[in-house]
Amino acid sequence: MKLTLNRNAFIQELQKVQRAIATKTTINILTGVKIDLTNQGLTLTGSNAEISIESFLSVEDENAQMNIERTGSVVLQARFFSEIIRRLPEEHFTLEVLEQNQVKITSGKAYFTVNGLDSDNYPHLPIIDTPNQIQIPIQVLNKLISETVFSVSQHESRPILTGVHFVLSNEVLLAVATDSHRLSQRKIPLADTAEQFDIVIPGKSLIELSRSLSDEEGDVSIRMMDNQVLFEIEGMKFYSRLLEGAYPDTNRLIPTSFNTTIEFEGKAFLAAIDRASLLSHEGRNNIVRLHIADDGVILYGNSPEIGKVEESLNYNQVSGEPLDISFNPDYMKAALRAFGDTTIKIQFISAIRPFILEPSEGQGEFVQLITPVRTN
Amino acid sequence: MKLTLNRNAFIQELQKVQRAIATKTTINILTGVKIDLTNQGLTLTGSNAEISIESFLSVEDENAQMNIERTGSVVLQARFFSEIIRRLPEEHFTLEVLEQNQVKITSGKAYFTVNGLDSDNYPHLPIIDTPNQIQIPIQVLNKLISETVFSVSQHESRPILTGVHFVLSNEVLLAVATDSHRLSQRKIPLADTAEQFDIVIPGKSLIELSRSLSDEEGDVSIRMMDNQVLFEIEGMKFYSRLLEGAYPDTNRLIPTSFNTTIEFEGKAFLAAIDRASLLSHEGRNNIVRLHIADDGVILYGNSPEIGKVEESLNYNQVSGEPLDISFNPDYMKAALRAFGDTTIKIQFISAIRPFILEPSEGQGEFVQLITPVRTN
Repeated sequence: MKLTLNRNAFIQELQKVQRAIATKTTINILTGVKIDLTNQGLTLTGSNAEISIESFLSVEDENAQMNIERTGSVVLQARFFSEIIRRLPEEHFTLEVLEQNQVKITSGKAYFTVNGLDSDNYPHLPIIDTPNQIQIPIQVLNKLISETVFSVSQHESRPILTGVHFVLSNEVLLAVATDSHRLSQRKIPLADTAEQFDIVIPGKSLIELSRSLSDEEGDVSIRMMDNQVLFEIEGMKFYSRLLEGAYPDTNRLIPTSFNTTIEFEGKAFLAAIDRASLLSHEGRNNIVRLHIADDGVILYGNSPEIGKVEESLNYNQVSGEPLDISFNPDYMKAALRAFGDTTIKIQFISAIRPFILEPSEGQGEFVQLITPVRTN
Repeated sequence: MKLTLNRNAFIQELQKVQRAIATKTTINILTGVKIDLTNQGLTLTGSNAEISIESFLSVEDENAQMNIERTGSVVLQARFFSEIIRRLPEEHFTLEVLEQNQVKITSGKAYFTVNGLDSDNYPHLPIIDTPNQIQIPIQVLNKLISETVFSVSQHESRPILTGVHFVLSNEVLLAVATDSHRLSQRKIPLADTAEQFDIVIPGKSLIELSRSLSDEEGDVSIRMMDNQVLFEIEGMKFYSRLLEGAYPDTNRLIPTSFNTTIEFEGKAFLAAIDRASLLSHEGRNNIVRLHIADDGVILYGNSPEIGKVEESLNYNQVSGEPLDISFNPDYMKAALRAFGDTTIKIQFISAIRPFILEPSEGQGEFVQLITPVRTN
């Protein structure tokens, strides 16, 4: 393999796959990036136990200014290789595989010789040959992820809850995440698709996917096999394993009738929760208390060691029974951030039953649920 | 004490003194900020065992929009207090000391009550009443610090070497730092001063001082007592303790005659050293080798596990005997960064004797010395 190309174009490709490359792993070759050069172009692959990313730089890409002298492949230690490339003196550089996977990297008057690994020993990526696929706009998928993924469980005691449950049926894509203390659920219509699926994708994979796609536009195509899902956009393939097992039936968790309803400006309410949580974080119990009554709506936070905070809240409207309810402000902050700068309504049954948040104009397509904390 | 003022103006003052406030300390009150309100204005004080910073916000400062209802003082836990102030909802806020050092913080409809401490228990700052002082431009002092402080020792085995040695005599201010492997020395003329001193200021204090002064212009006045130095600018006083003991005589360490001299563009040489150090950092010995001979000037780095790098260097001129010398590239990088983007000359005696760097046009006013590493 021998190739000369533009350094910045190469660095961009390397960054795409580095997201998947394990820094700590028992499989040494997975700390490497696999480099495959054919006459069509350059394929880079990075992988860890959960996700794999493959990028492709076409020989026809003008920014890459590729000059292919000899095709071939090799695996190079990714972190180190990327630091070398970043520091090279010239705009272009040459990559040449010598004997025994030694790789010569030349740019200007600097040349490195580094030890590579045989690419035949690199694990094969899953082959997803199903023709069935769905297409959704990248920004819709990213929004779906950011609105739900924060609610996945961080604990491995129930592994299935560390993923987001995606169900496609009747032209509606449903995404649900819950750590059993709170739940996030989003539905989006997907017209003109006959596809159906029911899968659980690890939360960590989705966070990386979201980062990988954050600057992209257009559609992403999604295909899956028994235990893998593939997200594909122009020039990049993103594979994630799926979580195995049955996801709990979350539909019955979301209440439908309520005794108290209040409507806030999301952003102002978030700022107040943030202030109150300053004190609750210092105390032993991380809770704040919301008081809803005829005399006003008041938020309380307190820490015996440091002090207390009390804030009379502005609200748009309130109805139903008075209520005193305590909850974890971090759950509330995460939910409010997911709504962004909009008007939200919160509906309660009682101080000990889960309550739900949704946009004021919502019809159940985006719901956050939080379980309160009993204080007596 | 009761005071209403502009929140941003207050945050600025708080940031100044927070630099000095210990996050970990056995003296609990030092995690606090001392707040003193007189009819002239507001003084904030932060301190740890090494440095103390005092800031003053005058009642006449129009940005502060201060409304003093009652003077007084209190100590508040700094980190926590600052997080509260940052999150307050309105442009202004009110600070009121209630009974038993309880402090009420009000802004809009939010109010906090936090536990403060009695300011009488806060340690007194040193009283530096000597009328003698020197004045130097803030940017000159900052440059002096950045050109030397990186060479102080990081080890407490010889505490005196953890400081920078400042000597003022005959209208020249000399600053020297060494960790016994390398040395940085800077001289600046200070005309029209009859002052003389010989002190050692802890490197850490100087780094904090430099950060405190980084956005400031004008002159800083420097005054000292037996074991303290005070740097003063408009609205801020910065105290540091001095290191006790005799600083070694470093003058005799700097050689004056040489056998090989080479001249580089500092920035290009730094980039080459940076590339070579990538590999040396991975190896057991963190060294790079510089080869100077008739056939060229070549820089080598290598790591048995990863690979090697070789770079033929551009240079402006070379004279004297050929040489092969090995050194720690991190020392070289730090020295080259201190010179910035200029032409530098490096003068060698032999492969086992310390060598010096200075700007090409230098006359000894700014010298960096590095001890090579013996490789056989």
